[in-house]
Amino acid sequence: MNYRSIINILGWILGIEGLFMLLPLICALIYGEFSVALVFGGCVVLCVVLCAVLTRQKIRSDRFYAREGYVTVALAWIAMSLVGALPFTISGEIPNYLNALFEIVSGFTTTGASILSDVEALSHGMLFWRSFSHWVGGMGVLVFVLAILPLAGGGSSFALMQAESPGPSVSKLVPHLKATARHLYGIYSGMTVAEIVLLLLGRMPCFDAICLSLGTAGTGGFGILNSSVGSYTTYQQVIITIFMVLFGVNFEFFFLLIVREINDAIHMEEVRWYFGIFFGASLLIAIDLCVKQGSGFFHNFQQSAFQVASVMTTTGYSTCDFDLWPQFSKMLMLMIMFMGACAGSTGGGMKVSRILIYAKAGIREARSLIRPRRVSAVRLDGNAVDNATLRGTMMFLACYLMIYAASLLVVSLDCEDFTSCFTAVAATINNIGPGFNQVGPTCNFGFFRPLSKLVLIFDMLAGRLEIFPMLILLFPSTWKRKR
Amino acid sequence: MNYRSIINILGWILGIEGLFMLLPLICALIYGEFSVALVFGGCVVLCVVLCAVLTRQKIRSDRFYAREGYVTVALAWIAMSLVGALPFTISGEIPNYLNALFEIVSGFTTTGASILSDVEALSHGMLFWRSFSHWVGGMGVLVFVLAILPLAGGGSSFALMQAESPGPSVSKLVPHLKATARHLYGIYSGMTVAEIVLLLLGRMPCFDAICLSLGTAGTGGFGILNSSVGSYTTYQQVIITIFMVLFGVNFEFFFLLIVREINDAIHMEEVRWYFGIFFGASLLIAIDLCVKQGSGFFHNFQQSAFQVASVMTTTGYSTCDFDLWPQFSKMLMLMIMFMGACAGSTGGGMKVSRILIYAKAGIREARSLIRPRRVSAVRLDGNAVDNATLRGTMMFLACYLMIYAASLLVVSLDCEDFTSCFTAVAATINNIGPGFNQVGPTCNFGFFRPLSKLVLIFDMLAGRLEIFPMLILLFPSTWKRKR
Repeated sequence: MNYRSIINILGWILGIEGLFMLLPLICALIYGEFSVALVFGGCVVLCVVLCAVLTRQKIRSDRFYAREGYVTVALAWIAMSLVGALPFTISGEIPNYLNALFEIVSGFTTTGASILSDVEALSHGMLFWRSFSHWVGGMGVLVFVLAILPLAGGGSSFALMQAESPGPSVSKLVPHLKATARHLYGIYSGMTVAEIVLLLLGRMPCFDAICLSLGTAGTGGFGILNSSVGSYTTYQQVIITIFMVLFGVNFEFFFLLIVREINDAIHMEEVRWYFGIFFGASLLIAIDLCVKQGSGFFHNFQQSAFQVASVMTTTGYSTCDFDLWPQFSKMLMLMIMFMGACAGSTGGGMKVSRILIYAKAGIREARSLIRPRRVSAVRLDGNAVDNATLRGTMMFLACYLMIYAASLLVVSLDCEDFTSCFTAVAATINNIGPGFNQVGPTCNFGFFRPLSKLVLIFDMLAGRLEIFPMLILLFPSTWKRKR
Repeated sequence: MNYRSIINILGWILGIEGLFMLLPLICALIYGEFSVALVFGGCVVLCVVLCAVLTRQKIRSDRFYAREGYVTVALAWIAMSLVGALPFTISGEIPNYLNALFEIVSGFTTTGASILSDVEALSHGMLFWRSFSHWVGGMGVLVFVLAILPLAGGGSSFALMQAESPGPSVSKLVPHLKATARHLYGIYSGMTVAEIVLLLLGRMPCFDAICLSLGTAGTGGFGILNSSVGSYTTYQQVIITIFMVLFGVNFEFFFLLIVREINDAIHMEEVRWYFGIFFGASLLIAIDLCVKQGSGFFHNFQQSAFQVASVMTTTGYSTCDFDLWPQFSKMLMLMIMFMGACAGSTGGGMKVSRILIYAKAGIREARSLIRPRRVSAVRLDGNAVDNATLRGTMMFLACYLMIYAASLLVVSLDCEDFTSCFTAVAATINNIGPGFNQVGPTCNFGFFRPLSKLVLIFDMLAGRLEIFPMLILLFPSTWKRKR
């Protein structure tokens, strides 16, 4: 293991985090919250010092393989979270450090599950930091580092990008990785600004517009009001719905649109299914609500579209308590939770493309029993999925289910009922936020005991980093010197 | 598709079923239930007539491949169930034919889920037929046919056995398939008789001992009292516990013991894990019960061992309402439900060997990310699992989850809460019987609407036949003439 390179990159990550913390500092100053600004100032200094110390390591070897990539990404996210939780605890707004850690991991992993029962009690600086952590975590902090820093080690860039990007395989938009990372952040920032502007045009207060847009962009879900997004106007809710859906689309789609490859863009199979499922599920739930609970179709459709977009992209905003919906709608919501958004987006879950691969591979297997001699490849976008990707995708499922099962057992020690257990793990490992019953949209994760919180923190990180980086940390052989 | 051979085999299957129905007929005569005997007599005649008609088909081709095997097995189980449900409806004891079909499918697939709220109202003949259907379905009716009939078509035997036997791959005990089938039924019958004798020694009434033993052998779970096994003595419960565990063991283990290959037997990895998990789970639940609900350890251990054995082997008997247990114990029970028993046993679920393959393959995948050059095979019992088996096992999981998700959606239209939906599907697709809440050990499946019942019937069959045979029936390409 090339420890020196890893530590060097960790140093840069913490430096970047210090840079990021300047924004909540400024925010706190604007709102006259000087003690909060002081806390962030202290944390910035700490980050700079850590960065200076860690990056002083001389790098002796260029060897940087997939293994180093996975370990670096996992450690970087843990380090970022450990430091990122400090402002909450130091300022006393979340006195318990474990709770603060849960909150910031939930932020960086774009989960949006909170341990707070009263969000509105937080200062503006802290609210901004919470929402901004979604934006940082959404596209990935290492992708950001790739975009701006000349990293040591030739192979490191691709290994890092591969480990941090969601989906069964990494698609490079352009041959050069640094350019890809810049394109990604460009699209990401542009769309965030567009949402802020559209919300401001709808007369939303500036602070709310910025925070909600950051949360939408990262598909995070931390609100700044106790009612999440329920108290905003219909126009504002519709804008947020549209942008939630957009941020769940594979960013390659936008890139293709920008470079005018419109034909390729609209033929992306994953994106087509994604939109199809979004409209299908919204419609089914709207009908179910009309039949079982009454009230007009358009109101129901607007509500169901918001909730489906929120859960499908794993954002986690809510405008109503979907825990009170009829069972069929709740079941559909739960399935969508597991499916998640597109690969290459900021959303979580298993990703539409993985589900497509599972379905196609399963049907192929059954077909091969009917006609054993006619074995065809699994195809996505017309291209055959190679065997390594197929195997990796299947093993992802196996590891995902194992972690899920183990987490359920631990969490069940604290939960009152099966639904709460099951959806608490589902909501964290898929990076959504709210579940049902004890962890429903109007509740929070504060009641869990420390062990469960640690497990859920692990699940959030495992979900965001797609299982393997976190899993590898647990293997003793990762840490052995010999290779 | 070789339709003639398939129809021929279906004819034999129905003939055998007629033969089987002689037993409840005799039972009804012994208890003086003459109208019931008459019903069974009529059904026997029907079966004989159907057998005579269908087996008159001249077989023109010997071609009998895996495809024909899967289709035959699926159709045979459906035909058997359609006829097997008749006695219930004709006698008027279960007037609704769909309910009767649910009941007999639950019997043949060794599920043990009932739509009856009062089991004790049934006549002795019907109770015997219910329990006997477990015994028939446990080892597989086609395996029985293989054991006694000289089937046409050279390739047919292996294709049929492969399609009906549970587990990721078929192990032939001896080179000759007919001999293998006979060995299997020999061990099966011997163990069933042993249990009956031991229960009789414990002063259980003869009828109860026979019915419960048939249900244990097939890992079915239909009781003959409303309290399931709760009202029997501790000795009797312990005997049933032991035999439930034994019938969940891979029958190859017993075969190896009989031919004195004891060393090979005790080194069977799946069997070791199976016993390990059984004792581990029983112990954990016993401790959980001691801590949360009090009462002595030995009583709790006896109760937890019975319930764990029942759920792990997917039998479904109960001596207490485990729906009232603490959440951790319930969660553990649910996991064991999914895991199920050993491959090559009469138990259902995913099978211990599949779970082992998933776990090992998942860990291998993660390891290969650490050391890409050192790729090792997944091993079970020291032998490398070949790629086709590995792929088939993974695809089983994908198809299993797809059917599970689709079933959940339909069932959720009738259920009041998530736990009931989730465990109703779990209890049927894993062939267990009881779930939690609305389908808990003290409840029944009668409240579901027809559509849900049909879906659950499909799930029971899909679970018993391990997904693919039932899935293939749904493909249009199965029924096309050209190959």
